Amino acid sequence: MAVRVWGMSSSGNCHKVRLILDYLKIPYEWIETDTRHKATQTDAFKQMNPNARVPLVQLEDGTYLPESNAILYYFAQGTSFWPADKLSQARVLQWMFFEQYDHEPRIAVNRAIQSIFNTISERRAEYEGNLSKGHRALSIMEKHLSENPWFGAGTTSIADIALYAYTHVADEGGFSLADYPHIRNWLGAMEKISGHSRMTGK
Amino acid sequence: MAVRVWGMSSSGNCHKVRLILDYLKIPYEWIETDTRHKATQTDAFKQMNPNARVPLVQLEDGTYLPESNAILYYFAQGTSFWPADKLSQARVLQWMFFEQYDHEPRIAVNRAIQSIFNTISERRAEYEGNLSKGHRALSIMEKHLSENPWFGAGTTSIADIALYAYTHVADEGGFSLADYPHIRNWLGAMEKISGHSRMTGK
Repeated sequence: MAVRVWGMSSSGNCHKVRLILDYLKIPYEWIETDTRHKATQTDAFKQMNPNARVPLVQLEDGTYLPESNAILYYFAQGTSFWPADKLSQARVLQWMFFEQYDHEPRIAVNRAIQSIFNTISERRAEYEGNLSKGHRALSIMEKHLSENPWFGAGTTSIADIALYAYTHVADEGGFSLADYPHIRNWLGAMEKISGHSRMTGK
Repeated sequence: MAVRVWGMSSSGNCHKVRLILDYLKIPYEWIETDTRHKATQTDAFKQMNPNARVPLVQLEDGTYLPESNAILYYFAQGTSFWPADKLSQARVLQWMFFEQYDHEPRIAVNRAIQSIFNTISERRAEYEGNLSKGHRALSIMEKHLSENPWFGAGTTSIADIALYAYTHVADEGGFSLADYPHIRNWLGAMEKISGHSRMTGK
C-alpha cells in the first residue's frame, strides 16, 4: 500500500513530512486533518495516534508512526539526508532536538497565536515572552550558519528540513529575519532542492 | 582522552548521560555545573556550547556534543540500547521527541519550580497549567506500558533512559504516580539494570 499522511497544510511539523517525501519522490496520499476543528481528538484518530497529534504517517506495512522528526528519520535512512558517521548522525539529532525544544515552542507557537488561531490579544504575555526566546534560537542558528553551510552534517540533512519548517514562515509569528543574513541564505539554498515547496496554507 | 561531562546532578537531562555511561561502563569525568549559579552563561562555557545548556559532553577526540538525547544516541550506537531495524529506531526516536516536547516541559519544569528553584508562589499559573498537560503525558505512557514492556524497542533502549530521567522524580513536581501502576513497574525494571542510579541531588 502507498504511504498515507495525516497532516494540516498550515503546520510546519506536517510540512516536514511533505518535504522529505517530495525530495525523495516517494508517492503518498495526504489526508488533510485540521486541528482547529478537533480532527485529531476523535476516538478513531486516537486509535491511530494516542497522542492525538499530526503529522501521522501510515507506512507501507500498515503501521502508524507519529512525531515529525521520527518520521524524517525513518524515510531518510539509506539516503543522502542521513549522514554515514555516528558523530554527524548525533549532530543531526542535536539540531532536531534543539528544533523541538528551543525553536518550535517559540517560533511555531507565536505563528499559531498570530496567524493560525488569531488569538494574539488573549495570549499577549505568552507571545511577548516567546519573542526573546525565539530570537535567541535564531541567533544560535545564525552563528552556526556563519561557520557551516548546513546543520549537523556536511550536506543537506533532515536537521535542515526540521529547522526549515518554521523558520521560513517565522515572519508570520512576528520574527523578522532581517538581521539574520546567513539564515536567509540557507533558506534560499533549501528552496533550490528538487521537489521543494514552501508552506502555503494558513 | 577520557570522556568529560558537564552536568548538574539535580537535572534529569544530565542524569540521562550518567545512566548511559554507567550502564555501558564507560569511564568519564563529571564536572558539576550548576545553572542556578549561571555556570553555563560564561563566555568560556558558551564557546563549548553556544546554547548555554547542560548536559554537554566532550568526546574522546576532543569535540563537544550537547543535547541529552543526541548524547544518548551517540553512546548507544553498537550497543543493545539502540535497536537494529529502522522502524524500531524510529519508534525509539518517536518517544525521545515525545519526551522533549510533551513530557519534560511539564514534568521537569514543575519539578524545577517546586523543588529546584522554589518559585512555586511566583509561578503558580504556569505550575497549575503544567499539571494537566503532564498527567496527559503520563497517561499516554501508561497506556503504552499496558501493552508493551519498553518504549520503542523490544528491550531497554535509550527511549527508556530518556523517559526515566524525570518520571522517577515526578513526585518532586507534584505528580503522584499512584494511578500509574504500569509506569511504576517499568521504573522498577529500569532500576534493576547493572550500573543504575536514581537522581540524588537537588
